[in-house]
Amino acid sequence: MITVLTGGTGGAKLVWGLAQVVPQEELTCIVNTGDDMHWWGLRISPDLDSITYVLAGLLSRERGWGFEGDTFECLARMRALGAETWFRLGDRDLATHLRRTQLLADGQTLTQVTRHISEALGVKARILPMSNTAVETRVHTPHGELNFQEYFVRERFQCAVIEVDFCGISEAKPAPGVLDAIQTSEAVLLAPSNPVTSIGPILGVAGIRDALRTTSAPVVAVSPIIGGAAVSGPAADLMRAYSLHPSASGIAEAYRDFLNALVIDEKDAGESTRIERFGIRAVLAQTVMNTDQAKIELARAVVEAARHHAAKSAGIGKQ
Amino acid sequence: MITVLTGGTGGAKLVWGLAQVVPQEELTCIVNTGDDMHWWGLRISPDLDSITYVLAGLLSRERGWGFEGDTFECLARMRALGAETWFRLGDRDLATHLRRTQLLADGQTLTQVTRHISEALGVKARILPMSNTAVETRVHTPHGELNFQEYFVRERFQCAVIEVDFCGISEAKPAPGVLDAIQTSEAVLLAPSNPVTSIGPILGVAGIRDALRTTSAPVVAVSPIIGGAAVSGPAADLMRAYSLHPSASGIAEAYRDFLNALVIDEKDAGESTRIERFGIRAVLAQTVMNTDQAKIELARAVVEAARHHAAKSAGIGKQ
Repeated sequence: MITVLTGGTGGAKLVWGLAQVVPQEELTCIVNTGDDMHWWGLRISPDLDSITYVLAGLLSRERGWGFEGDTFECLARMRALGAETWFRLGDRDLATHLRRTQLLADGQTLTQVTRHISEALGVKARILPMSNTAVETRVHTPHGELNFQEYFVRERFQCAVIEVDFCGISEAKPAPGVLDAIQTSEAVLLAPSNPVTSIGPILGVAGIRDALRTTSAPVVAVSPIIGGAAVSGPAADLMRAYSLHPSASGIAEAYRDFLNALVIDEKDAGESTRIERFGIRAVLAQTVMNTDQAKIELARAVVEAARHHAAKSAGIGKQ
Repeated sequence: MITVLTGGTGGAKLVWGLAQVVPQEELTCIVNTGDDMHWWGLRISPDLDSITYVLAGLLSRERGWGFEGDTFECLARMRALGAETWFRLGDRDLATHLRRTQLLADGQTLTQVTRHISEALGVKARILPMSNTAVETRVHTPHGELNFQEYFVRERFQCAVIEVDFCGISEAKPAPGVLDAIQTSEAVLLAPSNPVTSIGPILGVAGIRDALRTTSAPVVAVSPIIGGAAVSGPAADLMRAYSLHPSASGIAEAYRDFLNALVIDEKDAGESTRIERFGIRAVLAQTVMNTDQAKIELARAVVEAARHHAAKSAGIGKQ
């Protein structure tokens, strides 16, 4: 069993790669739900959907979110009816949100709904929301407070960030299966996701960070930062707001209390010494996942780094 | 001002015809909401939508319900996700239900939401729900109780009907504007709609039947029954369940306490004497609206029947 903590588009890419490298049945994804929101009266869980769709082979390759080949007829009519349309839901994608909202209203938990939807789409991996308690990532900017989607999609993360907080995080319990997956897996991976707004909420849920510290499994992350900049998205800005250096070593610092190895891009070889000062092994790889082959090779490198660490801990295969 | 009480597909056809004969601005439609239901977590108002769409030029001509040229991508995905799909919502149509549900959740009344949607679609006529109180038409069959859409769409009205009741009707108040429209219009029309399940709920709302009895405007109905059978739908069966003869004269009997004239099909000329025994004038016309021209001509005949009665009441143009 391999467990991966994930959120965002980089996370979905690595998860797809992992599913080519290990059987899907042996994969558990613990997914950020801090980006969730209500939209058009529906409960939207963008990170859960991206992971579900990518594992079902349904994620739009062109857009990196939503359904492959989706149409936007409903959206066009919503615009005509005066609704907000900056968050673009496709017609096929809509079914997922309608069904989730309906099943939640029927009393199912987000865990149950996520299993229902992913199984219906033929996903064999286990996809777990980080929590069944609502957590909302709020981004404080000089012009006011935004929810994550307002900041990320509507404002295209162009506004300055003062701080980020996760409403509800102090009451959030880990969803069933989450702590167990971290504690009993052969390896725990952190996808190259934004450490503040994708991995941050997961680590903020009571017990998860402790489980990462205490698990006997190796914990390996992939840096989402290459050469001082995020591969995509606002990770660098958000890290700065949290006094983290926007670099591979800044990622190492953020995770230093539980991380065993950090996979960084070959371009960042110069960061290795700083990373290893935190007691974290730096593993070089090509981390830009712009082709299927690159996703598979990165997934292999990450799994290999975890196995290497496990073997080393067990006292065999020492370097 | 002309006010028309309406529901169902026959109602939408006559309303379209009326909008060709009088300026839309001078038309008020009082619409049945007993057929409303919750579906996929959304509030569906089929009769309000049919009237809105037909007046906006958006009603599917092929299907007689929903949006012209609509697609069904979301529906196909809902099926894949295990949702019920016998009530078929198109992608464009979905926007109306999403927007209605959202605005109701925001605290607007159904009257306000209906105005918002119809104005956004360019409708100039005034479309009023019969009530802002929820009323649900329940059909009792030998196999159990169904809501109207279950009976009409899912079962295709093939099961026997013991009785029909309108849950919530005793608490329902007429929506703002409804009584006033009936009392102050030049003419009040009843579309060729099912007298039990389309017009019945409207007449059941407190004060509406009294307003029809006491208005000084002529009240003219079009019979939905031709030659002892409904033009479409289960009107004949439902009338029998209510001990009404499924005929033009049965319609006259159902409305005899307030009706001044009943427009019946030329094929039913033989019913005229029975109808006039109720003190209701029988007006012959071609009532099958299978072409645009037929809709317009029937609308003209109905408006003419109302004017004739008004002139007669005023003591001019007596025959």
